[in-house]
Amino acid sequence: MTRIVIDAMGGDFAPAQQVLGCVQALKQDKDIYLILCGDETQIKKELSQYDYDKDRLEIVHTTEVIGMEEIPTKAVKTKKDSSTVVAFRLLKEDKADGLVSSGSTGAVLTAGVLILGRIKGVSRPALCPIIPNYRGSGTFLCDCGANLECKPINMAHFAVMATAYAQAAYGIENPKVGLLNNGTEEHKGLPLHQESNAMLSKMDGINYVGNVEGREIMYSDVDVIVADGFTGNIAMKAIEGCAKSIGAILSSEFKRNFWTKLRAIFTLGIMKKVKKRMDYEACGGAMFLGLSKTVVKGHGNSKARSFAASILQAANAVRGGMVEKIKAMVDEVNAKQTAETNGEA
Amino acid sequence: MTRIVIDAMGGDFAPAQQVLGCVQALKQDKDIYLILCGDETQIKKELSQYDYDKDRLEIVHTTEVIGMEEIPTKAVKTKKDSSTVVAFRLLKEDKADGLVSSGSTGAVLTAGVLILGRIKGVSRPALCPIIPNYRGSGTFLCDCGANLECKPINMAHFAVMATAYAQAAYGIENPKVGLLNNGTEEHKGLPLHQESNAMLSKMDGINYVGNVEGREIMYSDVDVIVADGFTGNIAMKAIEGCAKSIGAILSSEFKRNFWTKLRAIFTLGIMKKVKKRMDYEACGGAMFLGLSKTVVKGHGNSKARSFAASILQAANAVRGGMVEKIKAMVDEVNAKQTAETNGEA
Repeated sequence: MTRIVIDAMGGDFAPAQQVLGCVQALKQDKDIYLILCGDETQIKKELSQYDYDKDRLEIVHTTEVIGMEEIPTKAVKTKKDSSTVVAFRLLKEDKADGLVSSGSTGAVLTAGVLILGRIKGVSRPALCPIIPNYRGSGTFLCDCGANLECKPINMAHFAVMATAYAQAAYGIENPKVGLLNNGTEEHKGLPLHQESNAMLSKMDGINYVGNVEGREIMYSDVDVIVADGFTGNIAMKAIEGCAKSIGAILSSEFKRNFWTKLRAIFTLGIMKKVKKRMDYEACGGAMFLGLSKTVVKGHGNSKARSFAASILQAANAVRGGMVEKIKAMVDEVNAKQTAETNGEA
Repeated sequence: MTRIVIDAMGGDFAPAQQVLGCVQALKQDKDIYLILCGDETQIKKELSQYDYDKDRLEIVHTTEVIGMEEIPTKAVKTKKDSSTVVAFRLLKEDKADGLVSSGSTGAVLTAGVLILGRIKGVSRPALCPIIPNYRGSGTFLCDCGANLECKPINMAHFAVMATAYAQAAYGIENPKVGLLNNGTEEHKGLPLHQESNAMLSKMDGINYVGNVEGREIMYSDVDVIVADGFTGNIAMKAIEGCAKSIGAILSSEFKRNFWTKLRAIFTLGIMKKVKKRMDYEACGGAMFLGLSKTVVKGHGNSKARSFAASILQAANAVRGGMVEKIKAMVDEVNAKQTAETNGEA
């Protein structure tokens, strides 16, 4: 049984959607056990509406909640009985194998590093969402905002961590890795990107294909795209805005008059399929890579379906041995790096 | 008569599509005069297929072409009789008021700075494309790749140049200006963005609304978005890839079988409207802001319609007095900056 601890109070629609997401996840995956941290009365009230396997769910009562606007370090240090902090503590104490929270990103990042801790050798943990692409699969974009200022060694770690994640949780055997840059030629980018490209080119254990441009996040056969957190964050949100805009334009054109509305009915099925292929809610949340256990950060506005997907995502990463894989791969990168620095390579 | 000089040999489909674009532009705008630089025989052969106002078009024969893969500085310095270099020389010698090229971006940037020259006081010229947005208008994204490494004063100049452009060429009276950042709060971003936000907040003459996130490029009411060239480039191309992917998915779903194809016929009109609202070819090219005259860089893969739009765009910027407006606004920014440095403000 894979044990996932849940921050039931984090998110715009918590705990209602989080609880329903847990119920759905329990139905979809018979091999998970869930520990819900949060206000027991509220959680029980939500649970009372549903039919679920009571043997695979427990509640750990907590009295505090970290709000979206709070200063992360302060909140994590002072709100010891918050659902987020308690969930991370249970994970640290080995009461669970993985964690899912759709609370404040800053609080999750901070609790992850301060309470749970990093994998030894990982310079910087990173956030890795999956962006739906035209192939109908997803592109792993790492980092998307955990680290604004990066060094080449951080980028190298992002590359192996996302590779290990794609392999362990999604069974992608030899994921193609690209570096997000303003052109494909070797000399492109700021010094950070030039040096990172040079370092990635020499690395073993990853399938590095070189620099890739912004359009390749969605329109290419590259599986993993490495980015400094600032650029990754902007790119991810630019794509979100584009998809949202096209959706809004489509919908407004179909609603223009009686005839266009009639046509909308005819194409409803097709539009639903398109939406499904572009649906990043179904992809779950962003994996927080580099921590000593599996942590998934769900969207702040997660609804039940998306939250359930995040839970299954965490369970799959645990079962695939993602953390152990990252550990082994990062060790190898660091050993080679040390050897090179010492002039042995 | 607004005189536009054309680099007829630059672009993937040159000179055929460039020449046709010129013919279309002459039809759409009776007040422009075009000077086409390029191989006379080829241009005449293309022109012979069309009906156009011969009194408003002349050819300046050139013998060389700068390829897309050439090193820009070397090419501009050695290929003195290339269509690009000759076009810029004519512009510099006041034989024309504006220039359009869909040749290599690097060569256009280099020729712009080396042959034509910057507006006095502009620290860095910048590329400013117009990204279609959900409102059905466009967002001016400046810079998109002319300057990878930027300082706050460069960003301040981008803001005023794009504002002047939006006002002069598109009649947007008081364009809203935002700074592309990883969050809207003041402390967000790298030091560059924090300092730029502080500087932009204190500036007169622009309608600054603060930090904006990636999704706001297409999904907001902000008209001008200021970015360092690296981030702007990635964001622009990420959006391009997203739109392309959604288009590909839509088209594949409609082509799936007989029934979906039938439905496609019913919705053809609607899809065309959506495409039109998202069509960045119709927006023309990217304005190269900060040069002493109007220069438009068309897409390398410009077809006639897009090239014609770039010509009209250049003509409108000339008529709206864009360069003079930029000059005045940059002078004001610099004067205030000097005063502050000297402790007078």
